[in-house]
Amino acid sequence: MNAGELGENVPEIAYINGEFMPLELATIHVEDRGFQFADSVYEVMRTYNGTLFTPEEHMARLFRSLSAIELEHGFTVKGLIGIAEEAIRRAGFAEAMVYLQVTRGVAQRHRGMPPQCKPTLVMTVRELHHPPPSQWENGLSCVTTPDNRWGRCDIKTVALLANILAYHAARKAGADDAIFVGADNTLSEATAGNVFIVVRGKLRTPPKSPRLLPGITRDKLLEASQAAGIPSAERTVTREELQAANEVFLSSTTNEVAPVTTVDGRKIGIGKPGPIARRIYEQFLQMFARP
Amino acid sequence: MNAGELGENVPEIAYINGEFMPLELATIHVEDRGFQFADSVYEVMRTYNGTLFTPEEHMARLFRSLSAIELEHGFTVKGLIGIAEEAIRRAGFAEAMVYLQVTRGVAQRHRGMPPQCKPTLVMTVRELHHPPPSQWENGLSCVTTPDNRWGRCDIKTVALLANILAYHAARKAGADDAIFVGADNTLSEATAGNVFIVVRGKLRTPPKSPRLLPGITRDKLLEASQAAGIPSAERTVTREELQAANEVFLSSTTNEVAPVTTVDGRKIGIGKPGPIARRIYEQFLQMFARP
Repeated sequence: MNAGELGENVPEIAYINGEFMPLELATIHVEDRGFQFADSVYEVMRTYNGTLFTPEEHMARLFRSLSAIELEHGFTVKGLIGIAEEAIRRAGFAEAMVYLQVTRGVAQRHRGMPPQCKPTLVMTVRELHHPPPSQWENGLSCVTTPDNRWGRCDIKTVALLANILAYHAARKAGADDAIFVGADNTLSEATAGNVFIVVRGKLRTPPKSPRLLPGITRDKLLEASQAAGIPSAERTVTREELQAANEVFLSSTTNEVAPVTTVDGRKIGIGKPGPIARRIYEQFLQMFARP
Repeated sequence: MNAGELGENVPEIAYINGEFMPLELATIHVEDRGFQFADSVYEVMRTYNGTLFTPEEHMARLFRSLSAIELEHGFTVKGLIGIAEEAIRRAGFAEAMVYLQVTRGVAQRHRGMPPQCKPTLVMTVRELHHPPPSQWENGLSCVTTPDNRWGRCDIKTVALLANILAYHAARKAGADDAIFVGADNTLSEATAGNVFIVVRGKLRTPPKSPRLLPGITRDKLLEASQAAGIPSAERTVTREELQAANEVFLSSTTNEVAPVTTVDGRKIGIGKPGPIARRIYEQFLQMFARP
């Protein structure tokens, strides 16, 4: 069934365990372990010019997440990318965002991993909208917040309540997002993206560790930075270094590069998106987004 | 519809947003925030002699959890208990376990809390089985494990993946459960229950804090202990104090009092369930479970 046949009101597509359907009809059982235990991992992919951006990297990370929570499955990279591409084709958007979630499956509620359990595979496709132009006019305002999340933030699980609460507190305080700072006073990441700073022309981002998600856009921006001749380092960043940086930006699949122009109420640089962020972003688009 | 009419194979009952149904037909939307963000809290209640055990205490804790994650709702204690009692009546088990989960509701996926969102209320009823007799014959073997969970374990959220993984690692290591120990070397709780130790005739359990769930059975056991003339204290317990205790036991709504006879491979006391645990358990049953 092509979603287009259902009319303009239901263009969103979902896929659950082998079946495509309109998103509004997509349900899972209440005893799915994704619902009762956050026993589940996910990925968010996007297209550029209708083509999936770095699908192999997303699938590699998904498989790492599945392995980290010991979720046995029979999925293949090729098979999952094929389903995502089919879902995108059926939805027919100019640019699409694909949400993919795998849970350990449905079982009578108990914290023990059920021995015989068929994983649940869910995908949803939505139209991808470009970040608003204001993102490059004014930039974002961020606050720092204590990182009270669990010890394996490198696994992309749906146990995201701490991120929800930190983001909500930031919004209530009048900011656009929050950046997590650990007990050692160094930052990990934002509530849905990695953090970069620029100091005296050099790019820096915290190293990969259990404290943060290894962002795919993060990695590609480091490549773009190198290609643009901008030196970079993966090194810890303290809260004070963040606040005193010449430039700050966040990175994620859907928001790409989001300049941050204030942190904890203080201006970053002159309080405008910086030239190095812009230069790296343009290089990134050239290398990865305009194939 | 009474589940009995559907035959012996589907005695389990579910309730979702105003409707009773057989558990096997109970579904939620894939964009329910309980499924995609663990943006959800829960309670597990039980009956003694067919009557709900401490329903007001469970509802008070549920409302605290809802408030802690800023989930606005129109539920009342009386209304929720009424639904639980109706579900128990429809299921018709001798003793029942009621699982109750509230999510922020269904909304297009974004980490921001949706301004207009109707909470999802799910209940399921299953038959409650008494803990196996071996629980009081041999007791449980536990291992200690670093507490890598988030900073608000006092909120009863479904973000339980860390508990799942710790429990699974314990089982793989041949133990029955894991007890979390923090960076300060004091213990917080087990993967699904509070921890008590007995040292020289005195009962001790870690104090309420963001590191552990304020167990209802925990509180009732402290009352029972007092009634039985056994002195008790809510005070931190180090890993070494746990390992050297005369007795150790876990408490939870469904498992009540579960004696622990080995910790990290070493015998607790003489390696058998202890007399003080037994005494407090009997007092607890007398006070709360045989009304």
